[in-house]
Amino acid sequence: MQQCDTLILPGWCIPVEPDSQVLTDHAVAIDDGRIVDVLPARTARQTYKPGSVIDRPGHVLIPGLINAHTHAAMTLFRGFADDLPLERWLRERIWPVEKRWVSAEMVRDGTRHAIAEMLLGGTTCFSDQYFFPEIVAETAAAMHVRAMVGTPVINFPTPWANSASDCLARGTDLVHDRYAEHALISSCFAPHSVDTVSDAGFAELRIMADQLDVRVQIHLHESQAEIAASLKSTGLRPLERLSALGLVNSSLLVVHGVHLDAAEISQLSAARVSIAHCPRSNLKLASGIAPIARYVTGGINISLGTDGAASNNALDLFDEMKTAALLAKAIAQDATVVPAALALRMATMGGATALGLADNVGSIEKGKWADLTCVDLQHFRSLPLYDPLSQLVYAAGSQQVCDVWVAGRHLVENAELTQVDRNEVLARTSEWQRRIASRTAEKRNEQQR
Amino acid sequence: MQQCDTLILPGWCIPVEPDSQVLTDHAVAIDDGRIVDVLPARTARQTYKPGSVIDRPGHVLIPGLINAHTHAAMTLFRGFADDLPLERWLRERIWPVEKRWVSAEMVRDGTRHAIAEMLLGGTTCFSDQYFFPEIVAETAAAMHVRAMVGTPVINFPTPWANSASDCLARGTDLVHDRYAEHALISSCFAPHSVDTVSDAGFAELRIMADQLDVRVQIHLHESQAEIAASLKSTGLRPLERLSALGLVNSSLLVVHGVHLDAAEISQLSAARVSIAHCPRSNLKLASGIAPIARYVTGGINISLGTDGAASNNALDLFDEMKTAALLAKAIAQDATVVPAALALRMATMGGATALGLADNVGSIEKGKWADLTCVDLQHFRSLPLYDPLSQLVYAAGSQQVCDVWVAGRHLVENAELTQVDRNEVLARTSEWQRRIASRTAEKRNEQQR
Repeated sequence: MQQCDTLILPGWCIPVEPDSQVLTDHAVAIDDGRIVDVLPARTARQTYKPGSVIDRPGHVLIPGLINAHTHAAMTLFRGFADDLPLERWLRERIWPVEKRWVSAEMVRDGTRHAIAEMLLGGTTCFSDQYFFPEIVAETAAAMHVRAMVGTPVINFPTPWANSASDCLARGTDLVHDRYAEHALISSCFAPHSVDTVSDAGFAELRIMADQLDVRVQIHLHESQAEIAASLKSTGLRPLERLSALGLVNSSLLVVHGVHLDAAEISQLSAARVSIAHCPRSNLKLASGIAPIARYVTGGINISLGTDGAASNNALDLFDEMKTAALLAKAIAQDATVVPAALALRMATMGGATALGLADNVGSIEKGKWADLTCVDLQHFRSLPLYDPLSQLVYAAGSQQVCDVWVAGRHLVENAELTQVDRNEVLARTSEWQRRIASRTAEKRNEQQR
Repeated sequence: MQQCDTLILPGWCIPVEPDSQVLTDHAVAIDDGRIVDVLPARTARQTYKPGSVIDRPGHVLIPGLINAHTHAAMTLFRGFADDLPLERWLRERIWPVEKRWVSAEMVRDGTRHAIAEMLLGGTTCFSDQYFFPEIVAETAAAMHVRAMVGTPVINFPTPWANSASDCLARGTDLVHDRYAEHALISSCFAPHSVDTVSDAGFAELRIMADQLDVRVQIHLHESQAEIAASLKSTGLRPLERLSALGLVNSSLLVVHGVHLDAAEISQLSAARVSIAHCPRSNLKLASGIAPIARYVTGGINISLGTDGAASNNALDLFDEMKTAALLAKAIAQDATVVPAALALRMATMGGATALGLADNVGSIEKGKWADLTCVDLQHFRSLPLYDPLSQLVYAAGSQQVCDVWVAGRHLVENAELTQVDRNEVLARTSEWQRRIASRTAEKRNEQQR
């Protein structure tokens, strides 16, 4: 008998690699944070002497979901600015409230809330893009979740840094250097969008990204307005400008990519650029609907992101999987595109590939980190059960998540956080709500006087 | 002090009438199944001597949600035929499985499952369209939920009836006459679609609907293929044909209405026809995306439907509200259309109007039936809380439903069914799963031999 830390025995296991496979009566053995075996349950019981056995009949075990794009701390602005178009949403509501409230304390509290919410919804890894990335990294590491922490790069002064150069220097010192060897935290540069970074800023960014060998993520081709503004100010479409600046390569993660023409699809595919598709945010801000089936056919790797809670308004990858699959069908006028298996792949391996983590997470394979999510299918909304994969994507919801492990650590058990005091997190959120809401009411009164 | 059965004290109350109102610290008094008062909590405590007090701080009370279109019994086929286009979905999967399995027993069990699922998700009323409508009516009445039971009208023989005339006669006897005076059950005729009923069938249907003063609901302009087929066989678009047959009037409920041109929008608006918008089903079957903002501007009353669980795959009006609001914005390229208040209105008053029940349900107003849903907003995904209406639509999910009342009866309490044995319902569902799955496997084996 071999020793192992944990043996999980789910009703079904969907490893994602190989594609579309649904294993019945299989076990996953975990040791030292990694998956050491995927094998028939009967054999597993004869082979392993586990520290603990997690029996989950009627549940399906999947790779931990990967949120390829969010602004975690913005959970504190959830519902603060709804039913507004992107430009007004940003300029009239989000930027002013950020200017007033963003601080290390706010980022810590907002990120904690976001991580708790994501864990309870089966998300084990997120790619973040927000001010005070050193606080995001610290918070994620303390809560033992996986994160790619993006250092925002913006020309103008923000509550965190004074210029693009300042952003890059701080990101390098505070995030990259400190977490270079960390098992859970990786870092990247995250220029906000083409209109907030100068050519010189991008040039500097490229050199540093190359030196440090880190990835770059940027909001790109999110709206027609963004493309039109770029054409007007530079004569180039945003992707064209990035390309001219030498940034279009396999380290690039295009966030949104709603509007791409055929040549641009080919270009991204050839350069092995990934897209972080954020379907619900794109709908809510009326940015458009990305023709995902065409991107898939074109060979682009697609990952899924929730975007921030101020434009979604939940950090729920079950919602994104469903929305991505359903929207793709309607836009392609073909109900067979983006089937359940592909939607799940986008939320797992697609995300891992987009974040440069495909060797370590994204599927249930021997040798990878044990980032796992177990979903209870014995609910009214997912019964009867003819096909666990289909039911997982089209019927189940994040409320059915029962267990979550990150690098083998059991962070959610019986749908409750094991290592975080939910009341303490929510008390901090309430305090921020009180501050932000009262200040907003005050300002409204001032304006009325 | 006045007597009343129940006094509900939610943190917030959104009555829907008047529009967009959010009441803080208000109470709703219920007596004899009806809402007898909506008033400030403090006054309520001084005025009423209730049989029971339901204290729900941090929760929002809304009108019970109305599912304007479903095929309840089809929950037993949930996930049985995914990732297929409408025509193949119907002809290769759904119709054969229906031919084999539909029976009074199957409709009773499937409808029970659907009602349990809908109640737990805050839905208090549904409009159904399926075989054995007498069983649907009996089941809904026994479970004390509100239902408009549609008698299917189809020319060809089905497991339930032999012809359109047979359908009409049975619907009249078994459903309409029996439930004519029932407080919860109403009835209507539900021709499946224009291609399954002859002109003679429609003529007979019109006479009987007029005589009985019942409404008519029909799948109409769901897909471009349906419109093309109608043009080919009759030279008329489906709506044109119905119009020529005298069926386009305020008793008509157009189910889907995905593809309507400007003249058709005007026609429906002028005739005060309602639409049952089923956005998730339309996406999943790749039928298209209805331009709802144009319908709203055109003055058409919009209700929301889940359609059956075989094409959605959950009976969740929170999902439909969110999807309706988000999709409308993207299609109109305007993030301000279908704001939260309108999405909630579609799922409540819009539904009540579509089903001819607007005088009795759809809003929290004195004199209406106490069909109510209470939603717990103290969840990670709906905090912080700046605007309960926005949070309800854009962030909350059906899993946050805490209480449901229909005509004053407390059917869901602490997110659990009070009058239905959940295990007994799910055991029946499992039995159907076993039968249907084994027969399918058998047939597959036969084909392979």
